[in-house]
Amino acid sequence: MAAKKIVKKNSQKPVKSLQEEALLLHAKHQGKIAVNPKLRVKNRKDLSLVYTPGVGAVSMAIAKDKRLADKYTIRKNTVAVISDGSAVLGLGNIGPEAAMPVMEGKAVLFKELGGIDAFPIVLASQDPAEIIATVKNLAPTFGGVNLEDIAAPQCFMIEKALQKELSIPVLHDDQHGTALVVLAGLINALKVAGKKKEKVRVVISGAGAAGQAVAHLLSLYGIQQIFVVDSEGVISGKRKNLTESKKALLAYTNKENFQGSLKEVIVDADVFIGVSQPNLLDRIDIAKMNQKAIVFALANPVPEITPDEAKAGGAYIVATGRSDYANQINNALGFPGIFRGALDNNVRAITDEMLVRAAKNLAAVVKNPKPDMIIPGVFDRAVMPAVARAIREKK
Amino acid sequence: MAAKKIVKKNSQKPVKSLQEEALLLHAKHQGKIAVNPKLRVKNRKDLSLVYTPGVGAVSMAIAKDKRLADKYTIRKNTVAVISDGSAVLGLGNIGPEAAMPVMEGKAVLFKELGGIDAFPIVLASQDPAEIIATVKNLAPTFGGVNLEDIAAPQCFMIEKALQKELSIPVLHDDQHGTALVVLAGLINALKVAGKKKEKVRVVISGAGAAGQAVAHLLSLYGIQQIFVVDSEGVISGKRKNLTESKKALLAYTNKENFQGSLKEVIVDADVFIGVSQPNLLDRIDIAKMNQKAIVFALANPVPEITPDEAKAGGAYIVATGRSDYANQINNALGFPGIFRGALDNNVRAITDEMLVRAAKNLAAVVKNPKPDMIIPGVFDRAVMPAVARAIREKK
Repeated sequence: MAAKKIVKKNSQKPVKSLQEEALLLHAKHQGKIAVNPKLRVKNRKDLSLVYTPGVGAVSMAIAKDKRLADKYTIRKNTVAVISDGSAVLGLGNIGPEAAMPVMEGKAVLFKELGGIDAFPIVLASQDPAEIIATVKNLAPTFGGVNLEDIAAPQCFMIEKALQKELSIPVLHDDQHGTALVVLAGLINALKVAGKKKEKVRVVISGAGAAGQAVAHLLSLYGIQQIFVVDSEGVISGKRKNLTESKKALLAYTNKENFQGSLKEVIVDADVFIGVSQPNLLDRIDIAKMNQKAIVFALANPVPEITPDEAKAGGAYIVATGRSDYANQINNALGFPGIFRGALDNNVRAITDEMLVRAAKNLAAVVKNPKPDMIIPGVFDRAVMPAVARAIREKK
Repeated sequence: MAAKKIVKKNSQKPVKSLQEEALLLHAKHQGKIAVNPKLRVKNRKDLSLVYTPGVGAVSMAIAKDKRLADKYTIRKNTVAVISDGSAVLGLGNIGPEAAMPVMEGKAVLFKELGGIDAFPIVLASQDPAEIIATVKNLAPTFGGVNLEDIAAPQCFMIEKALQKELSIPVLHDDQHGTALVVLAGLINALKVAGKKKEKVRVVISGAGAAGQAVAHLLSLYGIQQIFVVDSEGVISGKRKNLTESKKALLAYTNKENFQGSLKEVIVDADVFIGVSQPNLLDRIDIAKMNQKAIVFALANPVPEITPDEAKAGGAYIVATGRSDYANQINNALGFPGIFRGALDNNVRAITDEMLVRAAKNLAAVVKNPKPDMIIPGVFDRAVMPAVARAIREKK
């Protein structure tokens, strides 16, 4: 399975592709995380404190008062990253084993960016009822649950059921983490372009987990004109056989009951947000948008339109999900702070209001937003605390 | 909940009890394990390898061939330590939160003694069917499952069902890990006392998870006369209302269909093995045993009889579960090597035959067994490899 080495012409030195480099790195370390003791056990005394008989006193204390689990165990700083492998990156339903490298990567970022111990768990079942039952049973172990890469519409009911039944925060990051970071970027983009949230027309391509959550959060932020487009065109009341979750979008999108395709609804739009498929738009589409068009082409790794093509069509601000262009809309800007705040502030449910506040805080990390600087970088140390501050009950 | 400080007479220096020290240590570190990256993520290049887009190549490789999960993810060196908190240490059914410090301690020992990444998971349910369904759903994440501190008889059916349905090794350590270490100690004790396995009378006090597994492994090793005693006396065919698992013991214990109490059956016994309750025996009972009596009083922290009392009754060899006496029968001598061997040798099911071989190997680590040295210490570096060598399919 080793990727082929590409040998540069006129050179003996093999040049590795990013893919090959990633495969080698993963094989070298046999995965990306380790479970390590926080304290050493080198002699009988250590053993008697960490394990029996000393640990008995700790267990008895918690048996008398469960809340002490936060004091004496890892729970309070530990998050489960849980996936069924049904919608992994842009790769689709590749199953739990193949999802594991992504979940491990997420655990790495939880620690590096949020100081949180996150453990990846991939599930053998893609049945919502089984996933709900399983996560409920795991809950005493964790301070929070990050659901990841679970396909729509199952993700909606899974998240909702778990939020209702558990007293720890549960967040499907593909929905709400994405929505937070998109909104943060949009806040600065509107500012830079001199557009008002009450007046802009926003077209969202993609009506899955991310698209629906983005639409909802943008609406809550105060955007009045939102259109969500799936593979059959704009979600409208005129369409038959809409799923329940898509029907629910009609409460705050497409108030004018527009019927048509993506290429039709994008005419005169101010903002395009793609969380969908590669190569849906070209420069001609962008040229039909309003002045100072804002284009977030977030399909990854191949966006709905390349930044060069979008700019050739006259786009004023372009963002992607990629690290090799300006304005990377990256979930890693969100989830470490969301869970850091939730754990530290004893938040039982992460609300949309908290996410909007977090988006504003995240936007404000960029002191002087410009067309090529609407969102901070992932390694900006101000990011995590700014988001975390917002994730608390309002006083 | 802080334990009271004991102040020594004539001293200003407070002396902490072991309990207090354990509580302080657990609070200081907020639990005992951390999930850490194996590699650093300090810039965009790192990020592109550990997470998107580079990780996509790794996921795709595994999607094409699931076996590559062993190469590219943590699975192959990762074990779940799973408990429902129904039978924790000697503390009983104290629930999942209170079980967590013990499971974390176990994870610490897995790493320190076996080099294995173990993650503790405590479950909200004590229903066997729910536990089985939950662990099945977790299985793609792990290379093995260590069930821990689950009450009998539920533990039997849970383990059996999971062993049948999963292709990774599943072991209830309270049963088989305990049996392995007890047998290792017994092998050396018989040698030192000059007793033959075919001739000795062995009385096991305790017919729960540990007692039943010890009886089974001793029988498999070749011990002919085994008596298992529960709170109502010796398990015999004359008793009514025996549970299924206790009935199964009759196939290889109490062949003479003896009926009576612990104090009756111990008369003329060569070996007493207690995995039961504190203070069941005194010196008078031991004095009624055969010459060179072997007494394993493993109830923890308070044994069935103290070593001093047993020796006052004439016991030749005494072992306990405690670190403050000679001959500590400690599960930590077993499980790190069992899982190290299982993971390294691609063992799908840990058989009794492997456990007997492992017990022989473990016994052989003690070069010159003596009455006060029948079992190696937990920190003896020869222990883990000796056990691991035995856990493989026979050629």
